[in-house]
Amino acid sequence: MRGAPGDAPIEFWFDFASPYAWLASGRIEALAARCGRALLWRPMLLGIVFRETGMAPLPAQPLRGAYAERDVARLARHHGLGFATAFAPDGVSLTLGRIFYAIAGAVPEQAPRFARAALDATFAGGEDLSQVPAARRFARSLDAAAGDAADASDAPAPRAALREATAEAIRRGVFGAPFFLVGEEPFWGQDRLPLLEACLRGDQ
Amino acid sequence: MRGAPGDAPIEFWFDFASPYAWLASGRIEALAARCGRALLWRPMLLGIVFRETGMAPLPAQPLRGAYAERDVARLARHHGLGFATAFAPDGVSLTLGRIFYAIAGAVPEQAPRFARAALDATFAGGEDLSQVPAARRFARSLDAAAGDAADASDAPAPRAALREATAEAIRRGVFGAPFFLVGEEPFWGQDRLPLLEACLRGDQ
Repeated sequence: MRGAPGDAPIEFWFDFASPYAWLASGRIEALAARCGRALLWRPMLLGIVFRETGMAPLPAQPLRGAYAERDVARLARHHGLGFATAFAPDGVSLTLGRIFYAIAGAVPEQAPRFARAALDATFAGGEDLSQVPAARRFARSLDAAAGDAADASDAPAPRAALREATAEAIRRGVFGAPFFLVGEEPFWGQDRLPLLEACLRGDQ
Repeated sequence: MRGAPGDAPIEFWFDFASPYAWLASGRIEALAARCGRALLWRPMLLGIVFRETGMAPLPAQPLRGAYAERDVARLARHHGLGFATAFAPDGVSLTLGRIFYAIAGAVPEQAPRFARAALDATFAGGEDLSQVPAARRFARSLDAAAGDAADASDAPAPRAALREATAEAIRRGVFGAPFFLVGEEPFWGQDRLPLLEACLRGDQ
């Protein structure tokens, strides 16, 4: 493990609009627990990352977009998850990203719970959390203190945190979502979780 | 299985320059045997497909190219394969594609064997089969009749076969490699083999 020091946390880089991040979200929590590693949830804006890399978002790629709907549905069945859609409503990345960092700044232990639940609501539940009021109500339904924090998601601090996370992602070579870093060892895609686990166990 | 009729063969669409096609090549043979399905090897020119889809080959994508080297090495270890490189020499797609269809036209039973061996030689062995004389010698080393067929790889028929296969790939929505079709049910990527198998078994 060149870049994966023995005590480094698992960084889970994602965008709230990524169905593949949703597919990874439950399994990466279980994997981190099995391997005794801390898990850091790091939402970012993949659209900004793609401006650097020249990639296009899935729905903008005609053939891959149509395939993705089928692929995500199949993967959801394979992993026993409910499924509503592979395409999040426009705006979830910004709305949920800012609320995540608002919660992380005020009640950090609630932030991963919010992220996991918001991904589930979007892709398994088909809920539209792209508008700020709906997303704030969703946060409040999970936890009162998270709701209070979410109500301040337009403050400078969470806006800056999302912007800085995105800049950090670009700086560290994160080019898709989900993207996992252990130290500087990179793993791209929900389908690489078995390799990540093997790496953490020192098997390869 | 909407698009996967019970007796359809597995079509294995690939480009000889794709390390992920190499990673799939042994496993898809074993999978087809386990499931009692015919396996059709369908080499094509992914560069031509990418002109349609706007994708770029891996080595041309700065971040993804660097990641691919690491990713392919890790997947090779994970599957117990020797590994030399993730990047085939320029020209293998055309050289080996034409030789494949030359062999397929003359001694069809030798074509899959040639394809599998050429992928292994390229990615596990680090051999350069991009030049026609070396590739023809390689075919001859496997089988004399395959060698005779390979010697005629510049004839109109194999050139047309490769061109037509590429056109068919584009027409049927193949946008990457490896890409599997069972009927019209699409599976993209070596990491989707478990889903392909589940589909063939009627599990999902």
